[in-house]
Amino acid sequence: LRRRTLSIEEMERGVRENNRTVLGQAITLVESNAWKHQEKAQELIQRLLPHTGTSIRIGITGVPGAGKSTFIEAFGTMLCEMGHRVAVLAVDPSSTLTGGSILGDKTRMEQLIQQPNAFVRPSPSGGALGGVNRRTRETMLLCEAAGYDVILVETVGVGQSEGMVRDMVDFFLLLSLTGAGDELQGMKRGILELADAILINKADGENKLRALQTVSLYGQMSHLFQPATDGWDVYVGICSALYKEGLREFWNIIRQFSELTRASGAFGKRRNAQKRDWLYASIREQLELRFFSNPLMKEQLPLVEQNVAAGHQTVTSAVMRLMKQYEAGKVQDS
Amino acid sequence: LRRRTLSIEEMERGVRENNRTVLGQAITLVESNAWKHQEKAQELIQRLLPHTGTSIRIGITGVPGAGKSTFIEAFGTMLCEMGHRVAVLAVDPSSTLTGGSILGDKTRMEQLIQQPNAFVRPSPSGGALGGVNRRTRETMLLCEAAGYDVILVETVGVGQSEGMVRDMVDFFLLLSLTGAGDELQGMKRGILELADAILINKADGENKLRALQTVSLYGQMSHLFQPATDGWDVYVGICSALYKEGLREFWNIIRQFSELTRASGAFGKRRNAQKRDWLYASIREQLELRFFSNPLMKEQLPLVEQNVAAGHQTVTSAVMRLMKQYEAGKVQDS
Repeated sequence: LRRRTLSIEEMERGVRENNRTVLGQAITLVESNAWKHQEKAQELIQRLLPHTGTSIRIGITGVPGAGKSTFIEAFGTMLCEMGHRVAVLAVDPSSTLTGGSILGDKTRMEQLIQQPNAFVRPSPSGGALGGVNRRTRETMLLCEAAGYDVILVETVGVGQSEGMVRDMVDFFLLLSLTGAGDELQGMKRGILELADAILINKADGENKLRALQTVSLYGQMSHLFQPATDGWDVYVGICSALYKEGLREFWNIIRQFSELTRASGAFGKRRNAQKRDWLYASIREQLELRFFSNPLMKEQLPLVEQNVAAGHQTVTSAVMRLMKQYEAGKVQDS
Repeated sequence: LRRRTLSIEEMERGVRENNRTVLGQAITLVESNAWKHQEKAQELIQRLLPHTGTSIRIGITGVPGAGKSTFIEAFGTMLCEMGHRVAVLAVDPSSTLTGGSILGDKTRMEQLIQQPNAFVRPSPSGGALGGVNRRTRETMLLCEAAGYDVILVETVGVGQSEGMVRDMVDFFLLLSLTGAGDELQGMKRGILELADAILINKADGENKLRALQTVSLYGQMSHLFQPATDGWDVYVGICSALYKEGLREFWNIIRQFSELTRASGAFGKRRNAQKRDWLYASIREQLELRFFSNPLMKEQLPLVEQNVAAGHQTVTSAVMRLMKQYEAGKVQDS
């Protein structure tokens, strides 16, 4: 039996009823770069907008090996058993090159995907880098409209994805290991200052003492940084995702965070700022996308780069000339 | 006697001969936003390009109160006395709002400006925020063509100016005080990871012991960060700009840095990358400047912001509509 294409009305109803097949199809629509899919996706989201914004959005990062998958599986399963509805998304800009690396293998979350209250969506394996931001944000909205009240967004601890995810979530967790110094070497600069919590994972057996020492080290350092969230001191603690220890304590931290920041107004303030920042980021993205995908610019840029590098042309005059060519081309196109 | 307008040839000669009046006029030309000044400035820089790139470019940041002016005055004067030619520039994006705050009062550098080998240029007190980057880089080129072999670029320790300055200098100094933790609270995130050196200033009298303790604290922390420059461990030391202590030692550090990174190739690699990054940053800046200064967009944006904030419209569909209006307007204009 072939799937037939659903109408917008059918999709709207399906998402609202948390039909996971329909939710999956709606996300595929959002992920598509095809123009007609885009239009349909926007109309769908438009209709669902009143039912969005209802979850707590949690970003999770950490270097490969920190145990992110095991943590998300254990933490997500626990939340489902507590009665929550949990959606797990992944942001991986590198997947456009590697063909999808995180959550790509659904079998890694065997236990979680069997939960009726869980929805696990691997990162799409292709598409434009610039689209990752939009796709993830709009997928979050769809999941919220489907009734998921906890959204976990996984990201790899390298590159530019952390800042992007920080800008779309309420709470940001850095999953770390003992021997923090060595481990952080490979991480993005300033990552510590994005985090609302740092959990030292794999704090079990012989490793537990070292984990507690790492907590103390991070604790000493944390006063050197501005807090990521106004009025919230970064929480530093331990857990063992493998032995399911420290997970309930961590959920209590998130609940405290939520209560405190909602009461102070910081929660809503950030959400509003995020929406506004997304608008402006999206404008910039479109301006650049149009410029850098313009055939004439694609042809000219390598030459200009060479000229500037060799000292044959000043940067400013090179850019002024490019802009003239670009705008003349635009007019000609139309 | 009114100054007459110099020809490009006269300016070129004047700058090359380090006529400081002509150099000042050339910088004023670069700082101007008027189109005909821009064209002339670009032609001048184009002619001078073969004589640029010859200095060591040093960025200096620190919160207000860290003693940046006193430090630059003492350090610059020492370098002049050693036979160097020292240009001091300031980057202060906030000056567009405050009317110029750093180096604005030339009398703060009384001693230095009396040195025949020094050139002190306050930050311009107006102009577009986006122009700060271009103006400072091009002013550096002019100073190099005039024979200055040490360029000090002062910036305030807040906002976005540090990253901008880091991207245009070879060496970046964070001037700090004792009690680093408290002091850093007010600083930009990730500032520590931009620095090639951290100097604890005002390390004199009773404060010296505390300064050494702060050095030790920074030293422990520094291994937690990626170095700002490949193959160079951040230097942490003390100085007293007031009593002119630690300045010669600091200059030796810069010389070591220069030798080491030139030998490893890191120096030239950064300079090339900076030129390329400037090209792309300048393109992005122009794209945004043109979009956000477009009268139709200026009129539409506040309405769109409201619609998006109120949940009446999705970000993506709002941006798509704006882009259509923008490009239709462009075609109509021509």
